[in-house]
Amino acid sequence: MEMTELDDQDKCEKMRVAQLQFIGKILSLFTHQLNNHLAIIKDSVGFLDDLIKIKGQFKDDISEITNTMIEAEEQIEKATVLSKRLNSFGHRMDNAFSTFSINDILDELLVLASRATIQKRLSFERDFSPDVPPIYSDPSKVHFLLFCLMERFLKRMKAGGCIRVITKAKDQGCTVCFAVEDGICDSEEVWLCSDEVIEYAKSSLGCKTMENNPNSITLFFEGMG
Amino acid sequence: MEMTELDDQDKCEKMRVAQLQFIGKILSLFTHQLNNHLAIIKDSVGFLDDLIKIKGQFKDDISEITNTMIEAEEQIEKATVLSKRLNSFGHRMDNAFSTFSINDILDELLVLASRATIQKRLSFERDFSPDVPPIYSDPSKVHFLLFCLMERFLKRMKAGGCIRVITKAKDQGCTVCFAVEDGICDSEEVWLCSDEVIEYAKSSLGCKTMENNPNSITLFFEGMG
Repeated sequence: MEMTELDDQDKCEKMRVAQLQFIGKILSLFTHQLNNHLAIIKDSVGFLDDLIKIKGQFKDDISEITNTMIEAEEQIEKATVLSKRLNSFGHRMDNAFSTFSINDILDELLVLASRATIQKRLSFERDFSPDVPPIYSDPSKVHFLLFCLMERFLKRMKAGGCIRVITKAKDQGCTVCFAVEDGICDSEEVWLCSDEVIEYAKSSLGCKTMENNPNSITLFFEGMG
Repeated sequence: MEMTELDDQDKCEKMRVAQLQFIGKILSLFTHQLNNHLAIIKDSVGFLDDLIKIKGQFKDDISEITNTMIEAEEQIEKATVLSKRLNSFGHRMDNAFSTFSINDILDELLVLASRATIQKRLSFERDFSPDVPPIYSDPSKVHFLLFCLMERFLKRMKAGGCIRVITKAKDQGCTVCFAVEDGICDSEEVWLCSDEVIEYAKSSLGCKTMENNPNSITLFFEGMG
């Protein structure tokens, strides 16, 4: 019986990892296809610009055309940056364990989660130490844990607030801190994930809570040393 | 001891579901942001078209400009369709169980996996019965299972081959069949997922294999009846 239970847990873990690898594969296929479309759109808009300059004789000033062209190009660029981060996010699922920088993981999260800040006009302020050592861990579980903790601030913050995201090197590992200077309201919210699962994720990652206040939380991740 | 093992399996399952919900949330944020960019690009290109017609006096024919405009609009449309499927794919992860049509699940997979067919010029042929009854199951695990099985054909098919995807109503449930008429080569391949995990996924979904040949496989999913 004990053996069966262990097997079941083992199967469940294998299922989790395999399902993440599948999603990573789909995201990789998606972003390659999207990048292809975006590249052609970019080329088309650039080509239009050339054609208009070569072939057109315009009655009055063409600033409206130029500005529209610039607007389109900016949006193509933003979509490309977003797609690039989704590609990285997906590739974190390729392996259950890998070596990565916590700064890259946070950068992916902050870019991909930017939509969550729009309605309340929230903003992120990054204070990433370039000296944080790489860590060897489960990168998609780290993504998950950091997003769940950040979400609790995002949902509780007042409109216009700013969340500081700070990384620092510490004892051959690194710390990640989310801090809100003001603007926390105590409204009850439905969180993406229960406390129980967050604690389970933390313990399975060997991640420790250094401080946990209404306005800030700091986690410690062990390095490879 | 038994109790602890059960708890661990329970935690593992909760972790799997929570992690999928997180990815679903990220994909929802991503696709909303991407759709926003694509909508502005589309508007800009449409506006450029208007401006050029109103303001421009062109020396020679403008078919090149018109064609480039059409090309850009087509690519924006394709990117929008892709993004829509990724949005649906992500929302399948919102709940561990839901009621869905197997046809919709397959449509999402075939659109999102289309990039995997380009290199070998493979194609999908859909033969979906509109009469398949809805099933109540774990939609992202069904996505996973169907993709893993389809991947084994995609990797073994010769260039230019076609894979038929057939759904049918059967005994208050439905069947899904992947069939390749010819062009299977027996090259050894590394699959995304092991047989063991596929069997585990099938048994946890209550899904039965009706037939399994080198050129085709048919699965049965129970309906809600």
